[in-house]
Amino acid sequence: MFQGFEAAGDGSHGPARLKALREVMAADGIDAFMVPRADAHQGEYVADCDARLRWLTGFSGSAGQAIITQDRAGVFVDGRYRVQVKEEVDLNHFTPVPFPETRPADWLREALPEGGRVGFDPWLHTHQDIADLRKKLEADNIALVPVGNLVDRIWTDRPAPPVGAVRLHDSAVAGATAAEKRQRIADALREAGQATAVITLADSLAWLLNIRGADIPRNPVVLGFAVIDDDGRVQVFADPDKFDNEVRTALGNEVAIMHPSGFEAALASVDGPVRVDPKTAPEAVFGILEGRGTEIAKADDPVVLPKAVKNAAEIEGMRDAHLTDGAVMARFLAWLDATAPGGLTEIDVVTKLEELRRDAGILDISFDTICGVGPHAALPHYRVSTGSNLPLADGQVLLVDSGGQYATGTTDITRTMAVGDMPQAVREAFTQVLQGMIAVSRLRFPKGHSGRDIDPVARAPLWSVGRDFDHGTGHGVGAALCVHEGPMRISRISEIPFEPGMILSNEPGYYREGEFGIRIENLLVVAEADSPDGRDMLGFETLNFTPIDRRMIVAGMLSPAEREWLDSYHAQVLEKIGPLVDAATLAWLEGATAPI
Amino acid sequence: MFQGFEAAGDGSHGPARLKALREVMAADGIDAFMVPRADAHQGEYVADCDARLRWLTGFSGSAGQAIITQDRAGVFVDGRYRVQVKEEVDLNHFTPVPFPETRPADWLREALPEGGRVGFDPWLHTHQDIADLRKKLEADNIALVPVGNLVDRIWTDRPAPPVGAVRLHDSAVAGATAAEKRQRIADALREAGQATAVITLADSLAWLLNIRGADIPRNPVVLGFAVIDDDGRVQVFADPDKFDNEVRTALGNEVAIMHPSGFEAALASVDGPVRVDPKTAPEAVFGILEGRGTEIAKADDPVVLPKAVKNAAEIEGMRDAHLTDGAVMARFLAWLDATAPGGLTEIDVVTKLEELRRDAGILDISFDTICGVGPHAALPHYRVSTGSNLPLADGQVLLVDSGGQYATGTTDITRTMAVGDMPQAVREAFTQVLQGMIAVSRLRFPKGHSGRDIDPVARAPLWSVGRDFDHGTGHGVGAALCVHEGPMRISRISEIPFEPGMILSNEPGYYREGEFGIRIENLLVVAEADSPDGRDMLGFETLNFTPIDRRMIVAGMLSPAEREWLDSYHAQVLEKIGPLVDAATLAWLEGATAPI
Repeated sequence: MFQGFEAAGDGSHGPARLKALREVMAADGIDAFMVPRADAHQGEYVADCDARLRWLTGFSGSAGQAIITQDRAGVFVDGRYRVQVKEEVDLNHFTPVPFPETRPADWLREALPEGGRVGFDPWLHTHQDIADLRKKLEADNIALVPVGNLVDRIWTDRPAPPVGAVRLHDSAVAGATAAEKRQRIADALREAGQATAVITLADSLAWLLNIRGADIPRNPVVLGFAVIDDDGRVQVFADPDKFDNEVRTALGNEVAIMHPSGFEAALASVDGPVRVDPKTAPEAVFGILEGRGTEIAKADDPVVLPKAVKNAAEIEGMRDAHLTDGAVMARFLAWLDATAPGGLTEIDVVTKLEELRRDAGILDISFDTICGVGPHAALPHYRVSTGSNLPLADGQVLLVDSGGQYATGTTDITRTMAVGDMPQAVREAFTQVLQGMIAVSRLRFPKGHSGRDIDPVARAPLWSVGRDFDHGTGHGVGAALCVHEGPMRISRISEIPFEPGMILSNEPGYYREGEFGIRIENLLVVAEADSPDGRDMLGFETLNFTPIDRRMIVAGMLSPAEREWLDSYHAQVLEKIGPLVDAATLAWLEGATAPI
Repeated sequence: MFQGFEAAGDGSHGPARLKALREVMAADGIDAFMVPRADAHQGEYVADCDARLRWLTGFSGSAGQAIITQDRAGVFVDGRYRVQVKEEVDLNHFTPVPFPETRPADWLREALPEGGRVGFDPWLHTHQDIADLRKKLEADNIALVPVGNLVDRIWTDRPAPPVGAVRLHDSAVAGATAAEKRQRIADALREAGQATAVITLADSLAWLLNIRGADIPRNPVVLGFAVIDDDGRVQVFADPDKFDNEVRTALGNEVAIMHPSGFEAALASVDGPVRVDPKTAPEAVFGILEGRGTEIAKADDPVVLPKAVKNAAEIEGMRDAHLTDGAVMARFLAWLDATAPGGLTEIDVVTKLEELRRDAGILDISFDTICGVGPHAALPHYRVSTGSNLPLADGQVLLVDSGGQYATGTTDITRTMAVGDMPQAVREAFTQVLQGMIAVSRLRFPKGHSGRDIDPVARAPLWSVGRDFDHGTGHGVGAALCVHEGPMRISRISEIPFEPGMILSNEPGYYREGEFGIRIENLLVVAEADSPDGRDMLGFETLNFTPIDRRMIVAGMLSPAEREWLDSYHAQVLEKIGPLVDAATLAWLEGATAPI
């Protein structure tokens, strides 16, 4: 199994570690120290050696930070983790702080005297975050002081950094060779008058060089930094032991593999103007460049947009992965239908689904499966542990959000299934969520529009009955890379214009605390769309082909167009997935995809 | 008749006037002169004495500007007026320029040499517009020079400014006395630490003092400026002959009526900080204040938001006006059904509708009626003239967008009717427009959301079939004031959060050039909305009660919720309007409001 079921956070060592940290702080004359979840690459998952927040506090969520003073220890977490943080940290020593309702700057201004000194590790915070924070603390004369990592000084048995073997990502699947990609980025730099760019995002590095790694779970990235020149030459700063000779040969002599310890020296001698992304690159990078007087061009990581706009080969790979995954999901749902409730627990369901995906050849799951029964389905990011594991029961929904890392692509899908007879109120809510999901699936929209313009369309059916959901409608998805990928998303806070080739999830939901939760998710590719009036419009191609539970739908609520979309979608599921499954699954699939 | 049917623009004098203007420009050493449509109050309608753009060029649209150089004469118009401008100006001397595709700054930079001088009348351009333009012209060293109005110098028979009699607006209808309103604004000024505010918008002045005017058609405003102090005293700068003794007595001795010629001197002696709205107030006001070193607080006109958020009495007045208008519309549509095509022309229809509204006691129409048959319906702002007047014909749509100024409120409604049998394609397009209109009507949405968040909901049914419309979904509406009122609207460019009491139009459309056009419009009041989940949400109350032509609807395309809304709406139309009409109209109304 890729996924484990231990309760992730263990806060029992927190008080002793907190005491040790405070001693180091006092010795160094630091009044507060910030311990973020992030590593230097700002990814969603971190290696064990970078799990400083979890080590110190016990909190294991994917986002957050602690700020420690001599008499306070605040653990800042967002709405997803309000419950979890209380179960994981020792509440006698740590205080959960709701973020973003309480901002670190405001908390610090209250916690510290004027003239206070806040220490931080400049490799773990972005330039933008530090600049914003510094501005807010200025009024109270509170200083932000880059120091070494004080947690690392007391973490005597800190694991070594991972040395996951690097593998080559087939350039046929990538749709371009690494050399072509390097040249493309170099062209962009020259056009912008930039001599070099610093790459600090691990998925940017992986995309640029057509490599994949095994440093951290779920995200097949290689932890490392890179500097690319305007002639296309790249210096990679990552443990050389990760790269075998086959990979080195493929990368060629325009890509130099250097030990990470050489990164600072390389930055110090880099030619300007050097392009660095203030939103994602560590403050330390800016500090080194500024210290040498090197001209900095603050701009987006040049890889982010080319990576987000998938080419034909990448889209074909994603289609292929989703067909394979569709067969897995059909086998899974047929098994579930035949078995549930049958004494099954949430862990049994997760285990079965992962087994089926392993049979289909996944390299990893694309994120820890979210599998919740009844009230657990109301927690959008629930992760089952042996302590929380619930049995399936008649009259409950089962929400399963999962995906696989295939050689050709990354998948992500959510379905919410009926176990036994469903109350009418649950089916009505399901149908409202489905109407929003269908509205986005069949939408066309003018070019130039962004996630902000699409998001209300997903919510209108819920809004109209006074309901809503508290997460974005969709996130960007990488091609055989990270399942969460920027910069585009379907969200009120996203104004990145959609471009053909971008891949996004479409996953409206509805959650009633303590009772049930619903989410329905397919991935979509942005594509050119027809207009009978000759307007420049875009639309979506659906990647996932998996039945939507017909028992959950109140057919009488659907419009003719919604009904037509659903029946047509199910007909495509049968046509595409039917030939890929065994006879028993096919028989189930025929029933599950019958017209509504 | 309020409405006339002459062709509004006459460009025959344009060349001679252009020549005269160029001579004055040359004598004054001015390389370009800007002639906007606007007057000093930035209203949509202007008095004849302010119709400089029309006088010079012949173009009669409600928005636009000319920029004249010695060898070019550009007439900048937006998408609504692309066709009209070509019919009105002499194309041998004037060149239509598409706005905003071509910006005046870019046009000027191309037309003028470096170091060129652009003259403008600082009373006719806002501070913001001039600041933006100045910034863009700086790079080419082109100067923006405030000069007297050069058009006025050559316009020897320019009409005198209007002296429309001021009447009192009943404070029971307004929901507050003028004294209470003055005090409310004064409180806001004191709270913001502002000593005075300058009011330059004519509808702000009318709202503040509970007065209405007759200076210009359609908009019952009083042309004038005002200065309000933080103790609630007001100086009004408007022709004293407009105010009779009854009005003066009602206004009381805290409101001083001063001749407009005293405005500049008053500005020069006003106490700071003085609040002025850079988006709406003339550049001249800023120039005078800056010249005296008076501290300026740049902020919204303090009346705009209180005016936009209607109180209970204003909403009740708007409801009352719309019921009266609903009876007018029922009589009108019953007559149309019984008569059309019957040799009727567009002008006959406009005339009949205005007669019925006059019978119902209107003070004015609220805008020139838009009444278009077939291809004319595809022009969103079509205004029929004797030259364009078309007869009604079987198989054509008839689009009528109209409204009245009643003592209690301002109405606005659009209906698109079938004349004879309609092609299925037209009915399908009508139904798609209707679906967007219903989606907004029945929408609820989270507090804090704005027009930008609602606009896509109106468009989604059209977008989904590759269609769209090129105007906003809705505009703000005044209470017994201007039919177009800021600051809120339902539009991609509006981020003003909705508040309960705001009134907006909801008018999606679809236009197929040369063939047909569709628009369906009701007015909505923003109101608190229920949420079963206890969410803070808003929704809409509909003000208009007029049947939507059932012959235009493809019932099979509607969702159950849409059908329910439509039937319920029509039941309310019958219930509310039935008792207000004669027996023959009632009989027609019963058929027109039958369930679909």
